[in-house]
Formats: sequence, C-alpha cells, structure tokens
Amino acid sequence: MTENWLNKVNWAQDGLVPAITQEAGTGRVLTVAYMNREALEKTVLSKEAHYWSRSRKKLWHKGEESGHTQKVRSIRLDCDEDAILIEVEQIGGIACHTGRHSCFYQELQDGKWVATDPVLRDPKDIYKA
Amino acid sequence: MTENWLNKVNWAQDGLVPAITQEAGTGRVLTVAYMNREALEKTVLSKEAHYWSRSRKKLWHKGEESGHTQKVRSIRLDCDEDAILIEVEQIGGIACHTGRHSCFYQELQDGKWVATDPVLRDPKDIYKA
Repeated sequence: MTENWLNKVNWAQDGLVPAITQEAGTGRVLTVAYMNREALEKTVLSKEAHYWSRSRKKLWHKGEESGHTQKVRSIRLDCDEDAILIEVEQIGGIACHTGRHSCFYQELQDGKWVATDPVLRDPKDIYKA
Repeated sequence: MTENWLNKVNWAQDGLVPAITQEAGTGRVLTVAYMNREALEKTVLSKEAHYWSRSRKKLWHKGEESGHTQKVRSIRLDCDEDAILIEVEQIGGIACHTGRHSCFYQELQDGKWVATDPVLRDPKDIYKA
C-alpha cells in the first residue's frame, strides 16, 4: 500500500476534511467529524474509525473511552475529494456523547429544533468505565 | 417563525457549516456542501436545498442550472450544532456534477480509489439546458 491514496485527498489548509459516518444496515448518518492524514491512515489500517478532535487538538480513536468503537466497512471519497464517507458498524449502538444513537437527533419542526431521538444510555455510565 | 432556530446553529468563523444531503428512501448520502445563514433560511422557506458555493462565492440553489433540484423532507442538526443533515428527494436522480447519482462514487479498494458508480448522464447534456 503506497501513500498515493492519501495524497489524492484534497486536504484543507488546516489539514482536515469532514468525515461523515453512516451506519451499515440502517443507513443512519451517525456523526460528522474531521480527519487529517494520520486519522485516515489509522482508520484504514486498523479498520476502526479515527478522527482529529478539533476541540482537544489530538488524534481521537472513536470509542477509546466509551468502548463504542466504529468498525469500518467501506471508505468513500467525493467528487472533489474534500469529504470522506465511511460506512461502519457502530459497536454498542451509541455514536453520540449524549447517549443517543446518532448525533443528528434534533429536527427542525415549525421553527424549533426538537430532540426527536431518545437517550439510550446515561452519558455518565458510558464514560465511567 | 423567528430567527431563533438560525441562531442555534454554531456557524464557523467563515459563517458556514457543512450540510450533508441524504436521499429519502434509499438513505444514500448524495453530497456534502456548505450552508451559511441565508442558504439555510432559503432551504427552509422554499423547501429546496440551497448552499453557499465556496468556489463561486455565491448562494447556490442546487439544480438551478441542471433542473436537478433537491426537495427537502427534513432538516436535522447535530449535538454540537455545527453540522446539518438534510433528507431530500433528488429530482432527476443525479446529485453529482459528473452525472452520477451520488458524489461519493469513489471507494478505497486495496490502496486505490476506484470509481464504483456509473455515470448516468453525460454532464454536457445536463448543463446544456
């Protein structure tokens, strides 16, 4: 495996691209996070999703604290090569730090953002272990 | 309808957030583009997807040239309010300027990005009209 596939990605000036994570089977979009070269390389090699945490400014192995890792099924790149789509199996069924299945749990209804998805597990319990 | 729902979005310093567009029914992720306040407001009011074109630096009514508009079914916001997910009906079945169904037509296979999806219509024909 050469690095050519990493060079094909059109990294932004800050070295990142958005990475959309979609659940295999359900097709549910779980998260949008960011990857740098290292995160994408580690994702490909380990077959588990890695991102660059913009808030913590460090590489982030998704699920490293909660155990809710994302097993990668496929990795796609868009036409202008500046966005990545990964298809994953979400271990534990919870992708969001709020304890919900997906981070996209707020829907615009009549001019208000309404939380439509239930909290499946108390975040305190998720991050205790 | 007040502007409160627009203020809840955590716009980046450049005034934009990524907007992921997913096809109703198939669940296929079609595009990742960017929205500013005006694009989101126009999307909500017209029920057709509008984006901010970073390359052309202007508001972009998706399908304005090709006729391949995106009819909006739902609009979601993620947990940290800096990414939007819209569910759409893709008119004409072609979201990508290359004439493909989705922009995510390249899949990483054995260290190479492989175009796995067919061109459904010649882009020259799409933009002629």
